[in-house]
Amino acid sequence: MGKIKVGVAGYGTIGQRLADGVYLQEDMELVGVADFAPTLAVRALKEKGMPYDLYLVDGADKSAFDKYDIPVSGAFHDLVDKVDIMLDSAPAGVGAKNKEIYLEKGKKAIFQGGEKNSVADVFFHGYANYEQGVNKDYLKLTSCNTTGLIRSVDCLDRAYGIEKVAITIVRRVADPGDYHRGLTNALQVDKAPTHQAVDLMTIMPHIHATGILVHTPVTHGHFITVLATGKQKITKEMALEVFRKHPRIRVVTLDEGFLGNASLFKYARDLGNVRGDMYEIGLWEDSIVESGNDIMYGIHIPQESVTIPETIDAIRAACGMQLTSKEGTAVTNQYLNIGRFQ
Amino acid sequence: MGKIKVGVAGYGTIGQRLADGVYLQEDMELVGVADFAPTLAVRALKEKGMPYDLYLVDGADKSAFDKYDIPVSGAFHDLVDKVDIMLDSAPAGVGAKNKEIYLEKGKKAIFQGGEKNSVADVFFHGYANYEQGVNKDYLKLTSCNTTGLIRSVDCLDRAYGIEKVAITIVRRVADPGDYHRGLTNALQVDKAPTHQAVDLMTIMPHIHATGILVHTPVTHGHFITVLATGKQKITKEMALEVFRKHPRIRVVTLDEGFLGNASLFKYARDLGNVRGDMYEIGLWEDSIVESGNDIMYGIHIPQESVTIPETIDAIRAACGMQLTSKEGTAVTNQYLNIGRFQ
Amino acid sequence: MGKIKVGVAGYGTIGQRLADGVYLQEDMELVGVADFAPTLAVRALKEKGMPYDLYLVDGADKSAFDKYDIPVSGAFHDLVDKVDIMLDSAPAGVGAKNKEIYLEKGKKAIFQGGEKNSVADVFFHGYANYEQGVNKDYLKLTSCNTTGLIRSVDCLDRAYGIEKVAITIVRRVADPGDYHRGLTNALQVDKAPTHQAVDLMTIMPHIHATGILVHTPVTHGHFITVLATGKQKITKEMALEVFRKHPRIRVVTLDEGFLGNASLFKYARDLGNVRGDMYEIGLWEDSIVESGNDIMYGIHIPQESVTIPETIDAIRAACGMQLTSKEGTAVTNQYLNIGRFQ
Amino acid sequence: MGKIKVGVAGYGTIGQRLADGVYLQEDMELVGVADFAPTLAVRALKEKGMPYDLYLVDGADKSAFDKYDIPVSGAFHDLVDKVDIMLDSAPAGVGAKNKEIYLEKGKKAIFQGGEKNSVADVFFHGYANYEQGVNKDYLKLTSCNTTGLIRSVDCLDRAYGIEKVAITIVRRVADPGDYHRGLTNALQVDKAPTHQAVDLMTIMPHIHATGILVHTPVTHGHFITVLATGKQKITKEMALEVFRKHPRIRVVTLDEGFLGNASLFKYARDLGNVRGDMYEIGLWEDSIVESGNDIMYGIHIPQESVTIPETIDAIRAACGMQLTSKEGTAVTNQYLNIGRFQ
Repeated sequence: MGKIKVGVAGYGTIGQRLADGVYLQEDMELVGVADFAPTLAVRALKEKGMPYDLYLVDGADKSAFDKYDIPVSGAFHDLVDKVDIMLDSAPAGVGAKNKEIYLEKGKKAIFQGGEKNSVADVFFHGYANYEQGVNKDYLKLTSCNTTGLIRSVDCLDRAYGIEKVAITIVRRVADPGDYHRGLTNALQVDKAPTHQAVDLMTIMPHIHATGILVHTPVTHGHFITVLATGKQKITKEMALEVFRKHPRIRVVTLDEGFLGNASLFKYARDLGNVRGDMYEIGLWEDSIVESGNDIMYGIHIPQESVTIPETIDAIRAACGMQLTSKEGTAVTNQYLNIGRFQ
Repeated sequence: MGKIKVGVAGYGTIGQRLADGVYLQEDMELVGVADFAPTLAVRALKEKGMPYDLYLVDGADKSAFDKYDIPVSGAFHDLVDKVDIMLDSAPAGVGAKNKEIYLEKGKKAIFQGGEKNSVADVFFHGYANYEQGVNKDYLKLTSCNTTGLIRSVDCLDRAYGIEKVAITIVRRVADPGDYHRGLTNALQVDKAPTHQAVDLMTIMPHIHATGILVHTPVTHGHFITVLATGKQKITKEMALEVFRKHPRIRVVTLDEGFLGNASLFKYARDLGNVRGDMYEIGLWEDSIVESGNDIMYGIHIPQESVTIPETIDAIRAACGMQLTSKEGTAVTNQYLNIGRFQ
Repeated sequence: MGKIKVGVAGYGTIGQRLADGVYLQEDMELVGVADFAPTLAVRALKEKGMPYDLYLVDGADKSAFDKYDIPVSGAFHDLVDKVDIMLDSAPAGVGAKNKEIYLEKGKKAIFQGGEKNSVADVFFHGYANYEQGVNKDYLKLTSCNTTGLIRSVDCLDRAYGIEKVAITIVRRVADPGDYHRGLTNALQVDKAPTHQAVDLMTIMPHIHATGILVHTPVTHGHFITVLATGKQKITKEMALEVFRKHPRIRVVTLDEGFLGNASLFKYARDLGNVRGDMYEIGLWEDSIVESGNDIMYGIHIPQESVTIPETIDAIRAACGMQLTSKEGTAVTNQYLNIGRFQ
Repeated sequence: MGKIKVGVAGYGTIGQRLADGVYLQEDMELVGVADFAPTLAVRALKEKGMPYDLYLVDGADKSAFDKYDIPVSGAFHDLVDKVDIMLDSAPAGVGAKNKEIYLEKGKKAIFQGGEKNSVADVFFHGYANYEQGVNKDYLKLTSCNTTGLIRSVDCLDRAYGIEKVAITIVRRVADPGDYHRGLTNALQVDKAPTHQAVDLMTIMPHIHATGILVHTPVTHGHFITVLATGKQKITKEMALEVFRKHPRIRVVTLDEGFLGNASLFKYARDLGNVRGDMYEIGLWEDSIVESGNDIMYGIHIPQESVTIPETIDAIRAACGMQLTSKEGTAVTNQYLNIGRFQ
C-alpha cells in the first residue's frame, strides 16, 4: 500500500495542527489544506514558505489571497479529488455540508468534535474504541476534554474495571490569540450534566458518568478532576502504574515545578515543540487521592493539540492501515515522537 | 443579661465585615476594633465618621494615624479589658499570640480559619456543631470554603444522611483590591486532599471526605462542586427541597441570569448590600445531577463575607446567649436580614 | 418651582445609578424607571421593596414580570407623560427611537454616550460647557472616559490654559458581572485616534487632542494617561493645586495604599458607598511629571458611576434649575455627598 | 579570528533564549550554560538531548541533577575559563557578584537590564550606541521595554530628528508559566517617571523623555504608546517609511488580524518559531496619529525575546567582531533570520 493521501479542510487552530501532524507521518502524504480567507494562519504558512499546498473553499475571494502573494493550488473539490481521506476541521456545522462533497466523490472523512454525532458512522477514540472505526468511512473525534479524559479512564478501566465516573471540568475559555470570546474576572457555570460525561458514556457505554463544567478566564489548558469508582479498590499506586505506562499521559509533580496548566505550556515551549504544543495530557501525581473504592485525580488538557494523535489514529483505523488500537496508536506515537520522555 | 460586649482584632477584609455584622446585632455592643496601621480600611472608617472606635495594637505608630487625623481610643489591652469576647481576625498566626492576652484577662475569643485548630477548644460551625461551642471559651471558625460547603452538606445530612463527599474547589485566588497575590492566565494546582475536605471530617466525623483544589485568576467568589453519596437515594427534588429551606443558601438558576460567580456579586451590589457582600452561598439548580445514590451540585462561596454569620453564631454559642443551633442561627439571621428573599 | 419630575429609560448598569442618583436630589422627584425584562437589576429592585416604580417599555412581556411578582406601574408612555425630563440610558441606538416619543409628548431628555451626537442639541459636560445646555431640550452626555478626562483637562485649562492633549486609554473591557464581552490574557488595540480625544475637541474646540486606546482584561475602572501642553509652563505643584480643589477629583498616592484601579473600588466598598461606586475620578499624585511645558498625569475612571453627577448637572441645565456650571454642579455635589472627603 | 566562545550564566527565561540565539550564530561557539537547580528549563534541555553543555553555579547540589540523570560538564568557573565572553542573565544582583569572577579571569561579559548600570562600562543598545560598546569589556543591555522603544525612536531620530518623547507603558505583569507574580483583575500604577524613559535619556542624551507605567494582568507582551516630538513635522507616511525599513520592527495592521499582543504571539507560534518567540517588535500602522509636530504610535514588546538580538549585537561590539552598528546588527539579523518577512 502506498502512502495514504490526506487533505485538511479548515486551517484554523485544529486544522493547522492536524496538517503538521499528518506531515510527520511517514506513511501518509499531506496533499494540502483548504481555507476561506488569508487569515494569520494562512499568512504564517506563506511566511514559512508554503511547506504544503493551499486550496480555496467555495466562495473564497482569490484576490484577497493575491494581495499577500499567497500561492493557491486549486479549489476545495480539487483537493478532495486528490485525497483518500479528508480531515474536516471546518467551523462547527460546515463539516456536515462538506460531507455531501465527500459522499459524492466517495472519499472518507474524519470530523472534529464540533459536528453532530450523526455526521459520522462512529464516534471515535484511538484507545477506547479504535476497532469500531476500522474500515469505516466517516468517523467523528471526541472533543479535546473528552479525548484526554477517556485516555485516563480507559487505562484504569482496562486494568481494573471502572463502574462510574464524576468529573468537574475547569474549562479554559479561550485559546491564546482569541479576542472573539473571553471572560474577564468571572467563572461561568454550565447546565449539568456537561456533554463530556455524556460523550464518555457513548464511547464507553458500560460506565456511568456525570459532571459539572465551569468556564475560567485562562487560555493554557483545561483542568479536569475525575472521581472514578472501581469495580475493585484502586489504590494510588495501582492508578499510577497504569498512568505512567500510557504514552499519551505525562505524570508530573508539583515538586518538579509543574504548578499548573501554565507550567506544562511553558515546558512544551522550552522543549522546542512547535507552537509550544503538547500531545500528552498532564496528570498530577500529587492530586491522586483514594476514597473507599473511589480514586480521584486531576488532569491537564492542552486543548489546541490533544486531539491530534487520536485524529491520526482515526485515519489509520478508517483506512485500515492498522487493525488494532495497539498497532495504530503505536505508529502514530512513533511519528509524533510521543513517549520519548519515558 | 445586658448586651454582650464585642471587640474585633484586625480590621482587614474579614475584620471590617465582622465589625459591621456585630454592629447590626441588637443584643450585642461593638466596643471597637483594633489595628496596626492607617490602612485604607481604617481611613475609610475615618471618612465614614468613625461609627465605632479604633484601638491600636502593640507596636503601632500613633503618629501615622495622627497624620490623617484618625481618632484613637486606646491600646489593644484597653479594648480587651472592655469586652466580653474578642473576634480575632488578625493575620494568620497572630491570633495565637493574642490568645495569651485573652487568657490573661479571662476573656473569650473566636478565631478565624487562618489559625491552627489547637488555638481553640472547638472547631465550630453554626449549623453542624453549634451545641459543642456552647459556653466554651475559645472557638475557631471554619474557613470560607468549608463554612459554605458544610452548610450544604449538613442540611442534606440532617434530612437524608450522607456517607461520603468528594469536592472540587475552583478557588478565587485574590480578593478585589489585592495586589500582593494573584495569578495571571494560570490555574494552580494544590496537593490533594485539600484541607477543606479534612476540615469537614473534623466537624462532621461520620462523613468521609476528599477533594482537589485549583486556584483560578478571579476575585468574586469560589466555586465548589460537591459529589455527596447518600445513605439512601437522594433525588434532585429531595436535595432542592432542603436547599431551598436553608436561610443561608440562595438557590439560583442560569435562566434568571445568574451565569456565574460575578452575577452574584453584581446582584448583591444592586441590592444595595454594603460592599456588595452576600452572606448566603449561591447554589445553582441547573447544576444538580443525580448519579446512582450520589447527588452532585455546584455552589458559590462569597469569600469575603460568608463566615460572618457563623462567626456571630459563635458569639451566641460561646456566651451562652442561645443554647441551640436553631435558636442561635435564627437570631443571627434576623439581625443580618438573612432569608428576606424567600 | 416644584420638584422636577424625572424618569429613567433603561434600568441597566447606568440606568440603575441614574435612578439612585436622582433619588437623592431633594429638588427632583424620581417618577420611575422603565425596562424590557425582569433582569437581575429589576429583580434586585423588587427584592429591595420597590423604592421607585417600574414601567414596561413597548414589547415587554408582562407575564415574565408577573412570574417574579414584580409590580408594574404602567407603560413607557405613561412614564413619559408624568415626567418633565427623561434620562435615556437605553441600549445604544434605542435612545434615538425613544426621542420620537419625547418629541411627540414635548418632553426634554438627556441621552448617554452610546447615542450619536445628532440625537441632541448639545454634547454636554457639567464643567466644560454647562451654560450651553441651559434650557435646551436635548442633551447628550460625554462617555465615561471623556467625562472624567474633561474634568481634569478643564480645570487645568481654566487655571492655566491648555493647547494640546495626547491621551492613552487603558480601558477596562467589561463591567463586573459581564459575560457577553471580555478578554482573556489579551490586550486589544483600537484604530487611532480614539473617540474620546475627538469628543474632547467637540466639547473644548480650542484644544487639539489625539490618543490611543488599548483594551485590558480588568473590570474595575479605566486608567488614562494625559499629556497636556500648557500655554505656559505648568508645574506639578500648579497642577496639584487645581486638581485638589476639584470636588470630583480625588487626589491619591501610592504610599497611602492606592496601588491601582482596584484600590479605589475597594475603598469605595469600604466607605459603604452603594454598589461600591465612586463619583470622583482618582488622580495619582505620584504619576504627575513635568516635561518642558507639558504636564503628564494618570487618572482612574470608575466607568459605572462617573457620568452620574454630570448627567444630573444636565437635568439642572436643561430644566434651567441653575444657570451656571458653578451653581449647578454645587447642588448636584451636595445631594450626592461629593467633596465630603476634603 | 576563530569563533568567539560564549557562555551563559543563568538558564531562565532570558538565558535559555540567549543560548538558543548564540547557538544560531555561525561565527560564535556556545560553550555551555550554567544554572543552580534542575528547573523545568534544565529538564527540558535534558529531554531535548543536551544540545549544549550544562555547568553548575557555586552552591548547586549536584545530587539534585543526578536524580533526573542530567549530565553536568563542570563548575561555573570551568565554564568561565573556557569562554571569551559571558552573557550574564543570572537573577538581578547576582550578575554584580559574578563580575568579580569575570574580572579575576579577565573575561568580558554582557549583563541584562536587571543589574545596576554601574556594573558595566557602557549601557548598550545595538542600534542607538553600538559604537560606544566596541572593544569594551563590560556592557549592560537595556531592558525589554527600553530595547524595543529605542528601536522605534532611534530610527525616527536618525531620519528626522527627535527632541522629546512621552511614553505610556501598558506592562504585562508576568510571563507565561509564572506563578510567583501576577495580578488578578487589577491595574497597578508605578511612581512616575518610569525608568524606561530615564534609560532612554541615558542612551540618547539629546532627547528629553518621560512616562508613566501601568501593570496589566496579561502575559503576551507589553504595549507602549509613544508620543515623539520631531525637530520637524513628521507625517504618518514619513514615520511608516522608516519603520517599515527597520528589520527589527514588524509593521502590522488591525485589518490583517493583528488585534493586539496575543495576535503577535499566536502568529509567532504559527510561524513555527521556537517557543513562539518573536525578535521583532510589532508596530500598528492603525495606531499612528499626527498632532502638530508630534507623532504618536503604539508598539508591542515581546518581553521574553526582544533583547536577544541586541545582546548578540553586544557580543559583536565588545569582541570587536564588527565595528559599526550597521555591520554588527546585519550579521546578527542574518543568523537569527530577522527580516525574512520583508
